[in-house]
Amino acid sequence: MSRFRMTVEYDGTPYVGWQRQENGPSVQGALEAAVLSLTGETVSIRGAGRTDSGVHALGQVVHVDLARAWVPHKLRNALNAHLAMAGERVAVLDVAGVDDAFDARFSAIRRHYLYRIISRPARLAVEAERAWWVPKPLNHEAMHAAAQTLVGHHDFTTFRSAHCQATSPVRTLDRLDVTRTGELIEIRASAQSFLHNQIRSFAGTLKLAGEGKMAPADVRAALDARDRAACGPVAPPEGLFFMKVDYPGDE
Amino acid sequence: MSRFRMTVEYDGTPYVGWQRQENGPSVQGALEAAVLSLTGETVSIRGAGRTDSGVHALGQVVHVDLARAWVPHKLRNALNAHLAMAGERVAVLDVAGVDDAFDARFSAIRRHYLYRIISRPARLAVEAERAWWVPKPLNHEAMHAAAQTLVGHHDFTTFRSAHCQATSPVRTLDRLDVTRTGELIEIRASAQSFLHNQIRSFAGTLKLAGEGKMAPADVRAALDARDRAACGPVAPPEGLFFMKVDYPGDE
Repeated sequence: MSRFRMTVEYDGTPYVGWQRQENGPSVQGALEAAVLSLTGETVSIRGAGRTDSGVHALGQVVHVDLARAWVPHKLRNALNAHLAMAGERVAVLDVAGVDDAFDARFSAIRRHYLYRIISRPARLAVEAERAWWVPKPLNHEAMHAAAQTLVGHHDFTTFRSAHCQATSPVRTLDRLDVTRTGELIEIRASAQSFLHNQIRSFAGTLKLAGEGKMAPADVRAALDARDRAACGPVAPPEGLFFMKVDYPGDE
Repeated sequence: MSRFRMTVEYDGTPYVGWQRQENGPSVQGALEAAVLSLTGETVSIRGAGRTDSGVHALGQVVHVDLARAWVPHKLRNALNAHLAMAGERVAVLDVAGVDDAFDARFSAIRRHYLYRIISRPARLAVEAERAWWVPKPLNHEAMHAAAQTLVGHHDFTTFRSAHCQATSPVRTLDRLDVTRTGELIEIRASAQSFLHNQIRSFAGTLKLAGEGKMAPADVRAALDARDRAACGPVAPPEGLFFMKVDYPGDE
C-alpha cells in the first residue's frame, strides 16, 4: 500500500459537512467515491479537521492509502476528473506520497482558519455563501483588542459547542487577529487544534465587541466564566474557511 | 415622479442575463418585481450595461422612476428586503435621487469591467462560478503586452459577437491591463462602451497570448483583420464582472 497526503479545496454549501453521514452528501464521501470510481478501492479518507455544513476549505489536508504507487500529479488529475464528472464542489489541489507514519489528523501541529465578515448596509449577492453579512457598523479595532484577551492557554468551555466530543475544553490559541479591508473584516485563528464551533463562537462574540456591546474585559470575563451561556450567538458557517494545516518538516 | 439612480450587485449564475427575456429569470426582472411588490408600480428599469447569463456585477448602475419621493436609504433597504424574500441573488448597494436628465445607459461616460482567470492544475471548487479555470501555465506579461496592441480607437469587428446589435464596430478602448497575484490573473478593461462579447473575446485571445500561441503582433494582426474568425475562442461568462460606471459630475 502507498500513503498519499492531499490538499483539498471545497465549497461547503451543498454538503452536510466534511464527515460522511447518513443524512446527505459529505466532502469525505465525495472524495471516497472519486477514489472508488478511479481505482475500484473502497477507502476511508481521514481529514485534518471536521468542518460543519456550509463551512469551506481552501487547504484541508487528508490522507489515503491506495494499492498502487501513483505518480502524484497523475493521481491529482484523475481524482479531479472524477470529481468533475460527479458534479462535486471539491478539488484536489496537491498530492504527495508520504511515509506510513503520516496521519492528516494526528500529525498536524497547527491549523489555520479564516472567518470573513462583510459589514455593509446592503445584503450580499456575489458573496452570499462566502461571508457573514453584518449590516451594523463594526469597530474592527475593538474586535481585535477583545480577541487578544482570548489568545493563550485556556479552558474554552464558553466557546465550545454543546455537541463537542473533545475530552478536554483546554486549548492553546496561538493567534486571533482581526483586520479590515474596506467592507471586509477578516478574523484569522491559529492553534494546534480547535474545539467544535470554537471559531464561529469567537466570531459571534467578537461581532458584539465590534458593535460596542461587549468591551474587551467583558469578552475576557465570558472566557473566565467557562459557561456556554456567556458566549455570543454562534456566527453562521458560510463565513468560515479552513485555510491550512502545518506538519513537522514542512518548510 | 422621482428618478433614482441605484448601484446593483448580482451573482449572474442563476439568471439568463441582465435583460428581461421570455426564457428565464433576469436581473432586470428581479429588480422590477421587487419594485412591484414594494410600491405596486409596474416599472421598466434601465441598466448601464447588458450582461450575459453567468456574468456578475459588483457595480451595475440602473435608473427607475417612482411615484414617491423616497428617502434613498429607505428605498435601498426596502428593495433589499423584497429581493431577499424572493430569494434573488441581487442586492441594491446604493440609491440616490437624481435629475430627470440622468439616464443610466446614455449618461455613462466610462464602464469598467474585470475578467478573472485562475491558472492552476486543479479544477475550481470555491471559485467555480467566479473565474475561468485555465489549467495551462500563462505568461501574464505576454498577455499584458498583447493587450496593449488593442488599446485605442479601433474597428473591433474581430472581437464582437455575431449577435452584436451596435450600429458601429468602432470603439475607443481606454485600458486593458493584465496583472497577476499568485494563481489569479486579472484583466481590467475600461471604455465609454463595449461591443457584445468584446471583453470575453479579448480574454479568450489574451489567453492564447499567455500560452505562447499568439505573439503581441499576432493579436494586433487579428484586430487589423476585422474578421470574427481571427478571434480566439470566447472566454466563458463566469469570469466577467461589471465593476463600475462613471458619470459626469461623479467625484
